[in-house]
Amino acid sequence: MTNTSPARDLLIQVGKTMIAEQGYNATGINAVLKEAGVPKGSFYHYFASKEAFGLAVIESFAEENDQQLYGVLKDASRPALDRVSDWLAVSRGEMKRCDHSRGCLIGNLGQEMSSRSDVLRDALAQAFQRWEGCLADCLGEGQAEGSVRRDLDAGALAAFVMAGWQGALLRAKTVRDCQPLYEFEQTLMACIRTH
Amino acid sequence: MTNTSPARDLLIQVGKTMIAEQGYNATGINAVLKEAGVPKGSFYHYFASKEAFGLAVIESFAEENDQQLYGVLKDASRPALDRVSDWLAVSRGEMKRCDHSRGCLIGNLGQEMSSRSDVLRDALAQAFQRWEGCLADCLGEGQAEGSVRRDLDAGALAAFVMAGWQGALLRAKTVRDCQPLYEFEQTLMACIRTH
Repeated sequence: MTNTSPARDLLIQVGKTMIAEQGYNATGINAVLKEAGVPKGSFYHYFASKEAFGLAVIESFAEENDQQLYGVLKDASRPALDRVSDWLAVSRGEMKRCDHSRGCLIGNLGQEMSSRSDVLRDALAQAFQRWEGCLADCLGEGQAEGSVRRDLDAGALAAFVMAGWQGALLRAKTVRDCQPLYEFEQTLMACIRTH
Repeated sequence: MTNTSPARDLLIQVGKTMIAEQGYNATGINAVLKEAGVPKGSFYHYFASKEAFGLAVIESFAEENDQQLYGVLKDASRPALDRVSDWLAVSRGEMKRCDHSRGCLIGNLGQEMSSRSDVLRDALAQAFQRWEGCLADCLGEGQAEGSVRRDLDAGALAAFVMAGWQGALLRAKTVRDCQPLYEFEQTLMACIRTH
């Protein structure tokens, strides 16, 4: 199998959009090939299986998201809670751009595929763990600054924030509107900042 | 179409389990009929479409869950935050029983189907709204008791708790373990109780 090639990259890009919109099971290999304009029959030249394709899609999405998240949450020029707000605003902007239809690909696949593929489940759990780790560092800096409450462990707070945000994205999808995301952020900030 | 019959009820029961485990798109009508032992060809006697079947499954699951949730959260003999803990324990028990594979059917379908069916999305949003309303009443009683912080609106707190719990269920699925659920509850209680 070829590990990098323009056609392989294109299949992954198309797969990210289609899987985010339709889910993994509803996304057929032939539809991805057709959308990408890549010849039928070449899929297994690039991927050993649909699961291997799904893993490549997850890894590509997670890597892009890692970079975006790190860029915002590690920006030491901004107070820690402002960075958290910046991150939520970026994520909310993505929800607006897709008319509140997609949510987070990692969250979506976590729901759909956790019980059906250990390979995909592990990759999804690792992505969550990295994001929570980055968020924990930021919240720990907030605790050092004095803006974030110190009676709770930064790692536990990070997992709490990430879980809430995933749930808020889900709720936003069910009403096709960002209102649940704004309300979540307001309540979150009241819960985690120092009073 | 027949609105109630033993065969129709059986198809809905089987559908609930299969859709919770596999998702909506991966659950084929023929597989449901086979598992239920209901003759092929009779599906459209009971349901106008797969979407109508999905709606019946959602309504049946939501109704069961409504009863369970109301029983726990409206139990005026218990302090409000104990009722919230009781509800989380019931939900956690269900996650354990299915080896952390299913999560909440409403949450799962909200992820998978919100952008694909307005009929299903509306039913899912209504279920969430009812649960948040019931939780808001309970948290409001906690505010009256003095156990729940009063600086935040009970409805906003309820949406915050429900979002977080849905996200924690998702996280539990990705690690096939209840640990994220225990940690979420601990942080949640520290955030919403009166200090």
